[in-house]
Amino acid sequence: KINGARLWDRLMEMARIGATEMGGCNRQALTDLDKQGRDLFISWAKAVGCTIAVDEVGNIFARLEGSNPDADPILMGSHLDTQATGGKFDGVYGVLAALEVVQTLVEAKHVVAPPLEIAVWTNEEGCRFPPAMLGSGVMSGAYSLEQAYASTDKEGRTLGEELDRIGYRGTLPASPRPYAAMLEAHIEQGPILEADEKTIGVVSGIQGAHWFDLKVTGASAHAGPTPMAMRKDPWRAVAPIVSQVLQLADDHAPWGRATIGDVSADPGARNTVPHTLYLSIDIRHPEEGVLASMEEEMRCIIADACAAANVTHSLQEVWHMPPTTFAPHLVDTIEVAADALGYSSMRLVSGAGHDSLHTAQFAPTAMIFVPCADGLSHNELESAEPADLEAGANVLLRAIANLGEA
Amino acid sequence: KINGARLWDRLMEMARIGATEMGGCNRQALTDLDKQGRDLFISWAKAVGCTIAVDEVGNIFARLEGSNPDADPILMGSHLDTQATGGKFDGVYGVLAALEVVQTLVEAKHVVAPPLEIAVWTNEEGCRFPPAMLGSGVMSGAYSLEQAYASTDKEGRTLGEELDRIGYRGTLPASPRPYAAMLEAHIEQGPILEADEKTIGVVSGIQGAHWFDLKVTGASAHAGPTPMAMRKDPWRAVAPIVSQVLQLADDHAPWGRATIGDVSADPGARNTVPHTLYLSIDIRHPEEGVLASMEEEMRCIIADACAAANVTHSLQEVWHMPPTTFAPHLVDTIEVAADALGYSSMRLVSGAGHDSLHTAQFAPTAMIFVPCADGLSHNELESAEPADLEAGANVLLRAIANLGEA
Ligand SMILES: NC(=O)NCCC(=O)O
Ligand SMILES: NC(=O)NCCC(=O)O
Repeated sequence: KINGARLWDRLMEMARIGATEMGGCNRQALTDLDKQGRDLFISWAKAVGCTIAVDEVGNIFARLEGSNPDADPILMGSHLDTQATGGKFDGVYGVLAALEVVQTLVEAKHVVAPPLEIAVWTNEEGCRFPPAMLGSGVMSGAYSLEQAYASTDKEGRTLGEELDRIGYRGTLPASPRPYAAMLEAHIEQGPILEADEKTIGVVSGIQGAHWFDLKVTGASAHAGPTPMAMRKDPWRAVAPIVSQVLQLADDHAPWGRATIGDVSADPGARNTVPHTLYLSIDIRHPEEGVLASMEEEMRCIIADACAAANVTHSLQEVWHMPPTTFAPHLVDTIEVAADALGYSSMRLVSGAGHDSLHTAQFAPTAMIFVPCADGLSHNELESAEPADLEAGANVLLRAIANLGEA
Repeated sequence: KINGARLWDRLMEMARIGATEMGGCNRQALTDLDKQGRDLFISWAKAVGCTIAVDEVGNIFARLEGSNPDADPILMGSHLDTQATGGKFDGVYGVLAALEVVQTLVEAKHVVAPPLEIAVWTNEEGCRFPPAMLGSGVMSGAYSLEQAYASTDKEGRTLGEELDRIGYRGTLPASPRPYAAMLEAHIEQGPILEADEKTIGVVSGIQGAHWFDLKVTGASAHAGPTPMAMRKDPWRAVAPIVSQVLQLADDHAPWGRATIGDVSADPGARNTVPHTLYLSIDIRHPEEGVLASMEEEMRCIIADACAAANVTHSLQEVWHMPPTTFAPHLVDTIEVAADALGYSSMRLVSGAGHDSLHTAQFAPTAMIFVPCADGLSHNELESAEPADLEAGANVLLRAIANLGEA
């Protein structure tokens, strides 16, 4: 079993780097604080006996040799960067749980056959350098190295420059290598485990998501003198679109999701009918076919509502993450480990994207979720119980031990 | 009859001060450009034989003596300041039509009994210094001089400082004086005259308006992992509120109005359910009783929708303009003048607030509307036909001549 107190202490020590007043963490990718976090992780990993390699996009691999140098290594890990208003656990937990597993094996003198590697993926959050999950995405081939280097923050600094500045542009090629497995532990970032009172989420995949920008255009008019019947108010389309798109997700309960995260009006004056409304739409579902039919229905809802309101629209797709199915034998391994340790568990599909989405393209992959309070994440109030974090790391340890024997 | 070409030329000359690339005008209150516009008006008014007085809040009064020095003067006029994306006619037309009427009478050696005054009200638009219609509002007692002086623009400059800076803080008390009548000519800023193919709008009053800020608060959640049934999404209340508040105005057609001019989401991230949505609501109706019942119904709609969606709300009233009824004998005078001149006309209620709203508190008041293209106003594309502008000024001339005889 892993040392839960040591895991907790390290989580708290890492959280001091970029700690916010409200108890969260602001340690965005490739800032000075991210460098401090990376350096701290490397010092811990070296102390445990790992060797360190950094690839061209700044992904860190801390490696412990196994008894069989010819075996494909097993990969664990997650990310150390946070949102601007981030918490202490999102990403960090997956890295430090993996470190805890390696240290526990070393201290127990339990040598597994394959080498073990702990990955710290660069820029998972994407809040400083879009898109999210960039480091793992470059390694999987989803994005080119050039794309990644050119990604630019709001101050105009590129990811490539910032990698150089903090000394984390490595030489290891950021391209697929053979791995026997990749396991990522993570807080759920949702409320399901807590609601079901389960300690371990056995994650069978990641749902698919489409991101859209919707622009609905009518005509601006003075709020006072313009009779309702003479207006072309984009709200006449947008209000039913919002209701029906949310209903569309309800109709695909419990897995369908629809979110209108952002909205704005142009010109946005109190006494002017806006000529244009802008909305972001995020729809998700674990099954590709259902997601495609949700998208189709959403397009009909929008077209019908705009036609009925005599306004025009444009719909731009800005991102698409297809559903990911994790390796069934690894999902089983995690479930068996949780059972063997006596932890309550349930299977679920990740609602959020993770680096595992990309590693699944080049390595058998699965994830372990632990509960977080109220499902809160990307929030300074993000919180998780020490006992749950310990349980997740024990499941990771047991799964690695099982895979290492085979 | 007035000189339509001279009126048009002056409108175009004034429009050069602050002319925008798109053919509009940006001459906001108490800027250097506003000073240039004021100076130009004063030079014209003096050339016609007027004396100039400026009051404590910068309202300009250009006065032509009549044959009876004991008679209460007749007031005309409007404002010279514009919106940031304003047009050439809003306000300016009422000032220059009044000047044209005075000059026509002088040139025709037609002396009316009462003195004639042309008012240029300070800061009608309110886009630089809130609230709108401030200069006339101080004179009527709706706002105190101290309130007006303290009004601050986005750069932190006060109206009082800016009055001093451009040399337009006068000594005439900004308080009610006896006037026999106040007549304001204005573009309609709406589409009704154009749709009905009428040249003259005989304005019987100004509709009432309420401005509200609505804040609807649920709970933020990650767009991916949070099942629809576990969300507190403020959109579940806001979408039906928008539909039903617009419907409420439809139900009071043709005079009811409802406008959601502005909206925003907090935190406004694509993959986060917003915890809060902010909306502005503007509702209007010419009848106080109907407006009050619309407000009551709106409050029920909001409370019911928020209760149904399990979210909370706060509703702040930010402005209330009660309906104004103009002096019936002046409304008749305008209608008779339009008929006598052979112009098609219709009675209507102003949908927008005007300085006449405040002057109606201390002087019998009425307004003359002329059509503007597509009802566009507060827009650089604001446009009006020379023939219509000429017709409106002729109606003003005839009305003044009639009132001056009486
Ligand atoms: N884990 C996470 O927050 N990923 C961001 C991308 C998403 O919205 O799923
Ligand atoms: N005339 C005008 O645009 N007034 C502004 C106040 C209103 O919205 O009615």
